[in-house]
Amino acid sequence: MPPLSRRERVFFMSQQPKPIRVVTIGGGTGQFTLLSALKTLPNIEATAIVSMADSGGSSGRLRDELGALPPGDVLKALLALSELPEEVVRDLLLHRFSEGTLRDHNAGNMLLTMLAQYTENFLTGVRGFSEILRVRGTVLPVTLGSITLRAELENGAVIVGETNIDVPKHDAALRIRRVWLEPNASALPEAIAAIREADCLFIGPGDLYTSILPVLLVHGIREAISETRAKKAYICNIMTKAGETHGFRASDFVRVIEECLRLTLDIVICNTGTPLAKTLSRYEHESAALVEPDLPGSRGARNILGADLMSAGELARHDHKKLGALLKRALQP
Amino acid sequence: MPPLSRRERVFFMSQQPKPIRVVTIGGGTGQFTLLSALKTLPNIEATAIVSMADSGGSSGRLRDELGALPPGDVLKALLALSELPEEVVRDLLLHRFSEGTLRDHNAGNMLLTMLAQYTENFLTGVRGFSEILRVRGTVLPVTLGSITLRAELENGAVIVGETNIDVPKHDAALRIRRVWLEPNASALPEAIAAIREADCLFIGPGDLYTSILPVLLVHGIREAISETRAKKAYICNIMTKAGETHGFRASDFVRVIEECLRLTLDIVICNTGTPLAKTLSRYEHESAALVEPDLPGSRGARNILGADLMSAGELARHDHKKLGALLKRALQP
Repeated sequence: MPPLSRRERVFFMSQQPKPIRVVTIGGGTGQFTLLSALKTLPNIEATAIVSMADSGGSSGRLRDELGALPPGDVLKALLALSELPEEVVRDLLLHRFSEGTLRDHNAGNMLLTMLAQYTENFLTGVRGFSEILRVRGTVLPVTLGSITLRAELENGAVIVGETNIDVPKHDAALRIRRVWLEPNASALPEAIAAIREADCLFIGPGDLYTSILPVLLVHGIREAISETRAKKAYICNIMTKAGETHGFRASDFVRVIEECLRLTLDIVICNTGTPLAKTLSRYEHESAALVEPDLPGSRGARNILGADLMSAGELARHDHKKLGALLKRALQP
Repeated sequence: MPPLSRRERVFFMSQQPKPIRVVTIGGGTGQFTLLSALKTLPNIEATAIVSMADSGGSSGRLRDELGALPPGDVLKALLALSELPEEVVRDLLLHRFSEGTLRDHNAGNMLLTMLAQYTENFLTGVRGFSEILRVRGTVLPVTLGSITLRAELENGAVIVGETNIDVPKHDAALRIRRVWLEPNASALPEAIAAIREADCLFIGPGDLYTSILPVLLVHGIREAISETRAKKAYICNIMTKAGETHGFRASDFVRVIEECLRLTLDIVICNTGTPLAKTLSRYEHESAALVEPDLPGSRGARNILGADLMSAGELARHDHKKLGALLKRALQP
């Protein structure tokens, strides 16, 4: 078949349904699940805007030792959107080295850091990595600036660094009064543009104070979200987290997000399923509990979508297919 | 089943046939094919000793720009011995970037260089890479020193650098009078030990002057080969190469190897098959021709093993399964 002429191309493109532009906001495993769920839906143009506040583990070490930007959250988003066979690629890139200086790093973090340092530009590194992973969609670090997350607890104590909030040394029952970025930095212009042009934003799931807010708090993000005409959806966590969201119900998660954004969400997606008793008791050891979905039906301006979103297995995680079905409902005009 | 006791382990191990210790010597696609062929045989303990003279392409740039050791030949050997699904891993790690600063590099070279630079030790980088690729066997760079290959042509001209011999700018019909390393360096002690303890050495296939001799010429390798009790086998190339082995017959390849090593080979493996006419005419454009297997039957002390080793397809390459069958014969006591 000869290649299409320009006129034919324009004709065929006009016959295709226009893709829905979806922007996801978050980091870690939560965003990985969300992007995996989006991948099950047709006709989506996904842009992941990823937290850059990670200061622990392999990412934190690369940051401290090489002055690199933290690669871990970006890597997870890239893997979620990769069209290469998932298991092999994860097996290769997320396998943690067992020995010596490399111990606890993984190949993905090392490669992304190398690409960023070699090109002297983190974004170029991310684009290169996207190319070899055959990523369908776009992954954007929320900022290329160096940022540090800080939290003030209800007893007035201030904690510095994402990892010290995420892996708490403080009394895990203490509530967080507020979090902020100091230093803060400007959002990547491409991230702001993606939010402005989106049809729908999906915020979460993921650690509220250590994955979600660190994206929303970057200079320019809140303004872009308040100005976009995109539907704003929040996907609530399944479980609370010690030292971070201890005792939170769904309404508490929503309140923190809305206070941060100074607006009312259009959609809230909640899990209404219950984990196995042995799963719950295992989480209890970590002082984590099931988030109570205390937002029945539509509440105020918000459309509440609830369903059993639990994955099979012993971890209280979202099932990406069940979540995909609910995302589809959220995306309906 | 409970874990075996120490006594039981010793018993079971004594029941296993002792693995045959095979050392391969070379680089590039030739060594990749040889190692892939060895992987088809049971009970082999393979150690690949890999050329470090590469000065062209992505490896050469990393060498020039970062002062790194050239990763390309090591990477190919690691991929050949990896137990992960071959296609996906090659697709990921050998895919060449298409844009900007990263253009023509591949993820494997970048990752190996990162691991070597981060650990400040090329060998530790190779071991880390072996771990994530689940390599069965050992890959050793022949040296950690910085070496440069030089060649003197029959007209007296001297060419500096592997890539300038490999991709010739000189009259491709001119013979090479000799090659040497300047600077040269000491072989890795682990490589010398592997040769000394081997049951069989497989030298080649691969570019004679730019992949094979650059291993044999490293300080200490020739001595180790002359002292080991291992069987010494040479696997002859299928095609000649312009600017390097123009007009060579099998006996010419053998002569160069034997003169370099100052010994007589025990076994020579030759292809006796003929490529398709269209393949031959394609190679003719590159002034390359089929190597004539002019070593019929056993010749002197050498055992000559000949068979049709051609792979299907349009490139005149060794088929790793056919080669495996001949290697098996070579390995018989």
